[in-house]
Amino acid sequence: MTAQSDFSHLKEQFSLPKNSVYLCGHSLGPMPNTATTSVQQSLQAWSHLGVAAWNEADWINLPVKLGQQIAPLIGANQDEVIVTDSTSINLLKLLLAAISLNPTRNILLTECDNFPADLYMAESIAKLQPHVTVNAVPVDNLLESMNENVAVLLLTHVNYRTSDMHDMKAICHKAHTLGILVLMDLSHSVGAMPLYCSEFELDFAVGCTYKYLNGGPGSPSFLYINQKHLQRIAPMIQGWMGHITPFAFSQNYEKAKGISSFLTGTPFILSMKALEGALQIFTHSDLAALRAKNISLSTFLITQLENKVPTLHCESPLDPLNRGSHVAFSHPNAYAISRALIEHGIIVDYREPHLIRFGIAALYMDDEDIEKVVTITENVVNTRIYDTDRFLKRLQVT
Amino acid sequence: MTAQSDFSHLKEQFSLPKNSVYLCGHSLGPMPNTATTSVQQSLQAWSHLGVAAWNEADWINLPVKLGQQIAPLIGANQDEVIVTDSTSINLLKLLLAAISLNPTRNILLTECDNFPADLYMAESIAKLQPHVTVNAVPVDNLLESMNENVAVLLLTHVNYRTSDMHDMKAICHKAHTLGILVLMDLSHSVGAMPLYCSEFELDFAVGCTYKYLNGGPGSPSFLYINQKHLQRIAPMIQGWMGHITPFAFSQNYEKAKGISSFLTGTPFILSMKALEGALQIFTHSDLAALRAKNISLSTFLITQLENKVPTLHCESPLDPLNRGSHVAFSHPNAYAISRALIEHGIIVDYREPHLIRFGIAALYMDDEDIEKVVTITENVVNTRIYDTDRFLKRLQVT
Repeated sequence: MTAQSDFSHLKEQFSLPKNSVYLCGHSLGPMPNTATTSVQQSLQAWSHLGVAAWNEADWINLPVKLGQQIAPLIGANQDEVIVTDSTSINLLKLLLAAISLNPTRNILLTECDNFPADLYMAESIAKLQPHVTVNAVPVDNLLESMNENVAVLLLTHVNYRTSDMHDMKAICHKAHTLGILVLMDLSHSVGAMPLYCSEFELDFAVGCTYKYLNGGPGSPSFLYINQKHLQRIAPMIQGWMGHITPFAFSQNYEKAKGISSFLTGTPFILSMKALEGALQIFTHSDLAALRAKNISLSTFLITQLENKVPTLHCESPLDPLNRGSHVAFSHPNAYAISRALIEHGIIVDYREPHLIRFGIAALYMDDEDIEKVVTITENVVNTRIYDTDRFLKRLQVT
Repeated sequence: MTAQSDFSHLKEQFSLPKNSVYLCGHSLGPMPNTATTSVQQSLQAWSHLGVAAWNEADWINLPVKLGQQIAPLIGANQDEVIVTDSTSINLLKLLLAAISLNPTRNILLTECDNFPADLYMAESIAKLQPHVTVNAVPVDNLLESMNENVAVLLLTHVNYRTSDMHDMKAICHKAHTLGILVLMDLSHSVGAMPLYCSEFELDFAVGCTYKYLNGGPGSPSFLYINQKHLQRIAPMIQGWMGHITPFAFSQNYEKAKGISSFLTGTPFILSMKALEGALQIFTHSDLAALRAKNISLSTFLITQLENKVPTLHCESPLDPLNRGSHVAFSHPNAYAISRALIEHGIIVDYREPHLIRFGIAALYMDDEDIEKVVTITENVVNTRIYDTDRFLKRLQVT
């Protein structure tokens, strides 16, 4: 069985669905109790203080404070990260700004199997900036497609379906030798492993906070800009919270210094307070140890299922260095199996056309949980305790 | 004294700062108890259901459901409104789409005293679409500046400083005779008075939900598109929640039918649930009666203060038909006076350079409250119970 974990004491800090193993942290992390406490406090501040809470409860600085807390989780400096808007809108803002830093180039390079939301936003850039062409290539053609016409390379670090993980260091190195700026979507890796934005000189990043960071449904996204760009970058989308003095209500826009200039509208405080509570879990967590434990759990799961449930096929890389924190298995009856697993307390999810995803997060699952997952999956699949008639394949929510 | 109100029973449904009269609903509405209940329910759903809550608690449809609830408050049809993003981002999305509907024209007309966030976003449009020129004119020059080169007219219905209110009907009529599309920011009027988007054939609107709608700090904004445009309008910013089938995860963008195509990223559920609770207050409220009561309270306040506190000068229109729901008074020592009023339980706010704003909302204030406001203001100003040394003028948060 896998090695002893240092994270077992954290499980009780989560409110998990009862009698279940929760394996959907790659979609929506479960609720840390600290998130509830933080939201309750913000409701009290609203009630007791009204508008004064913007200053007295320091709501106004939450986007910067939360950025400072996320910075060490992605290996960035504290003044390089803010929390604001959704991942899609942050992508939009950063892509527009990044392209303007490389004005003589016209290609926005990405992979065609990138997360669809990222592809849609890349297309939006081409609509807004007609000189830009999106080149979305198969992952195997990525390196050969990097050339001196590429302004920005947009990738998602971990593939949402297969869990294939890009070698961020090698990609940044190759891109930079060609003068290409790299924007990485860290949604499917942040909170599950250490990241090295500064060390690899990653130019820009966005990321989701409601997956492995457990920030709650639709918690706002983070946005990272490497300090080497902060002096000369300017937002094309000029939000009033990104003004140097928003509460002077000047008719003229003057951007804030540093990364705050990428703030836009009024921050979504209740959603951000849940994230603030959730981030407390990470304060004393060693991300390298967390990653090691995640790998230990996922490797055990793969080994056991490949051995005991031969009709499931692992679609994720077997080398853990190339794999994110979820594991995907395919099966012709994947949807029906996923529903049966959920009914038996193994909370996985399903992705078209035939993938079952098991999200691994050692913060709230242990060796015994994975043993239970293996036993029940073996039982459900091998004895066909799933109902292909009842569960016709249908679309689900992330 | 003012007439009997039908809203007195609603005051107890709010958690108001103690021993105070709360007059900042034009900035952040106070907490309705139903908002707390709704947020608590969403925390329970997150805890008990995890990711399944997106379907089982119907979170995924909140942007549309909240839009349907706001529609009658702005005199719109239910399929013309959604709740998503911030007001700034919704302005961006609508301005881009609106301009593309009027492609032979190149002027974005607004007034230079518009809310600064709206001006900054208008400038952003000119950066993103270099063929567009922003013409920001004094309000008195607005009508003469409307001509056949104007693609879109962007106005805020009620001025955030003076409470001057545009005649929406006349503006829409004049604009439409010239082929100009009208985008109205309803942030400072929605929830305080009936609005008539359909009747006046207003083309587009955005609005804030945390002012007179009491949706909580940073609750997401609404976006309205008149049905006459819904068939042919397309978002330039293509969000995955605006895809016709987001959970098919198609590589190709295909916009959703109707207004849902203007959704972008994952909805901010906790912030939206507070708004959902807050909107219950409006379910059985007669907006015309609410407006009448608001006018009764604000007229009484103006009359009394002008009479009893002659050093305060009313900067808002005296004709209530031209006035929003807050009243602004100027004084050379406005900042120090505002701080003294707050210390005495009269929660107003201050705006540069010398304005004190009193927000009127009959949902949670009554005749006795306004009498108290008058008495304390009279005492504070006339006997100079304010400290101009201690309260040097400084910038405050909305």
